[in-house]
Amino acid sequence: MTDSTGRTPRRISIFDTTLRDGEQAPRNAMSPQTKLDLALRIEALGVDAVEAGFPASSAKDVEATRLISAALTTARVATLCRAARGDVETAVEAAGTRNHQLQVIATASEIHLEHKRGITRDTALRELHDAISLASSLGVPFITLAMEDSSRGSIDLLRATVETALEAGATQIGVGDTMGCSTPGEFGELVATVREWTPASASLTVHCHNDFGLALANTMAAIEAGADEVQVTLGGVGERAGNTALEEVVGLLAYKSDVYGATTDVKTEGMYEVYSAIRAAIGLEEPRNKALFGTYAFATVAGMHQQGMLQNPLTYEYVEPGRFGRESQLLVARHSGRAVLRHVAAQAQLDLSEDTVDRLYEKLVNGRADGDCVQLSVLREEIVAEMASVAESAR
Amino acid sequence: MTDSTGRTPRRISIFDTTLRDGEQAPRNAMSPQTKLDLALRIEALGVDAVEAGFPASSAKDVEATRLISAALTTARVATLCRAARGDVETAVEAAGTRNHQLQVIATASEIHLEHKRGITRDTALRELHDAISLASSLGVPFITLAMEDSSRGSIDLLRATVETALEAGATQIGVGDTMGCSTPGEFGELVATVREWTPASASLTVHCHNDFGLALANTMAAIEAGADEVQVTLGGVGERAGNTALEEVVGLLAYKSDVYGATTDVKTEGMYEVYSAIRAAIGLEEPRNKALFGTYAFATVAGMHQQGMLQNPLTYEYVEPGRFGRESQLLVARHSGRAVLRHVAAQAQLDLSEDTVDRLYEKLVNGRADGDCVQLSVLREEIVAEMASVAESAR
Repeated sequence: MTDSTGRTPRRISIFDTTLRDGEQAPRNAMSPQTKLDLALRIEALGVDAVEAGFPASSAKDVEATRLISAALTTARVATLCRAARGDVETAVEAAGTRNHQLQVIATASEIHLEHKRGITRDTALRELHDAISLASSLGVPFITLAMEDSSRGSIDLLRATVETALEAGATQIGVGDTMGCSTPGEFGELVATVREWTPASASLTVHCHNDFGLALANTMAAIEAGADEVQVTLGGVGERAGNTALEEVVGLLAYKSDVYGATTDVKTEGMYEVYSAIRAAIGLEEPRNKALFGTYAFATVAGMHQQGMLQNPLTYEYVEPGRFGRESQLLVARHSGRAVLRHVAAQAQLDLSEDTVDRLYEKLVNGRADGDCVQLSVLREEIVAEMASVAESAR
Repeated sequence: MTDSTGRTPRRISIFDTTLRDGEQAPRNAMSPQTKLDLALRIEALGVDAVEAGFPASSAKDVEATRLISAALTTARVATLCRAARGDVETAVEAAGTRNHQLQVIATASEIHLEHKRGITRDTALRELHDAISLASSLGVPFITLAMEDSSRGSIDLLRATVETALEAGATQIGVGDTMGCSTPGEFGELVATVREWTPASASLTVHCHNDFGLALANTMAAIEAGADEVQVTLGGVGERAGNTALEEVVGLLAYKSDVYGATTDVKTEGMYEVYSAIRAAIGLEEPRNKALFGTYAFATVAGMHQQGMLQNPLTYEYVEPGRFGRESQLLVARHSGRAVLRHVAAQAQLDLSEDTVDRLYEKLVNGRADGDCVQLSVLREEIVAEMASVAESAR
């Protein structure tokens, strides 16, 4: 497959962390069984890795990881470990080694070295080397260096961290904007720099947070700068402002693979259904206006937009709702216009005079209460009832 | 004021369209009185323009525009008009001419010319010229060319549209990514191109939608490409996936003015309170994880994060919550660790043995039900009760 510029788009690996970073946010905890069910549904979308948990953090994380690693058939099972032998051992006990992508957290900023860990850089590098060497000696096939807070680390610290990890046996380098404090320009530059230090045999993954609202843009900048994998969650659930949303990366690459020179294997059609299952599991209300997944992401009440949509959906739809398991919706509210009223009347085979259109518009459209918003079928019933009452009183 | 590179940051004009584009989305309709109250609160944040409505679309829009234009004292009152004499007259009747920023919509894509309007390009340019000339002759001081769907229009059409508008008296050129289908690279390039056609005496405004999740990134790319003004809504409310969020642009420029060479005059401290008032007016639930405004945007339950936060908030806080009228929150859930338990015990002046810490951790932290998430004060009461019961049974 080649894109419009004749290049073959790079296939980006999708690493889903809904069940780990998504789960660790307030009110998102799930039972191991629920996580297993969701892991299989996420895998079925075509993602490349499903992060099952942080085994050393709790017995439930061990159990979820064990269940998920035994059940996945196509995706890698991923885990998170601190740079500590005990964490690595627990993760390997839970997930085994087959298709296991074990992530070892490196303390990758001076702020975290001093104020969180209270250790020197040498100590941090030594514990990292130990943990990765252990994972390697245990036969873990995919070992990711997860550089926590790397967007605030010095280049010097990052370089030493990357070199140490590669020497110890890491197969992948991970650049994290843990605090969501990067801009796309800054993050793209960081990823390009780390890419230069990384041999072609190792891959590069990125993990972004949305504290300023730039998680997606930073992730896309990383893809442009050479990242091979992106870490995402469905609906962007996760710590604080959340993580990069899986559906946004996948949706964007589905439409803009020529711009980014990249593509994914995730099936866009099923994402919304799996997101709905996750929302149900964590008791999350559907957002009104979120990209692709919002209740009204493909809906409009505005008169000018409806006039266009009724002539040709192309006028106000670039993203095709059906491609994301969604439907286009025209709803009636007081910002709607005469076009939708005429449309509904024509469907009901009513031939209305302009005076009648004006009267019905004032009463049934423009006169609706603030916030009242109904389906076209409701307007249709209202029109039919209104016309019947006029006919009755004219007898 | 100069930034770290010695440049004086450009002051970006903030155009708030919460009460127009935000209001026209499903379930967001508000009464004119509510809009007036909110307009004054939005103005008090320090924005440069408050869009009051689309007067020709309804009597309520006329009323809201009339009330708001009479009440604003520092911000411009903005309105939206189609390229039609009647629309311009209605807008001027409603908002007068003092400090009125009247936006005239141009049909700025071939798709809209053919499939929505069914008119030729010449007709579109003629009606645009007429409408802008009328606004100019009526003495409207700020006239914006609002190029609808311009991100899908040909360069040829856009250039003719810009030239026609400037000739007729437009004082500002507006580039709209109406369908939210641009990437930052594409949108920045479009804005740079339009900027080249626009004399220094005219300003450039941009209007982005979030259909792919890139509204903020596209808006920031436009600022980097020379835009003088950005059109935004509080919380990103608006059509479909919403508009660019005011707080995200303002928050980002508050921290990254050196990266973007730009700044704003909006007061970050009051934004969340005004957003809360808007949510109340439109019955919108607070999002769990949105940037800056999410319920948990500054909260964490995760053990590793809490361990860092308890030592120094800097470890997991780049954005300072107090600067946005928010507070940092440590909550207790089953993903929390021993650090928060020790912290709470110390606050309660309890000196616990390691065995007791382990036992309380298993029962009160790790043993919490999925989704259960409480304040530290609740954990404190639970620990005190637990210790009292141990003391009781030891008697």
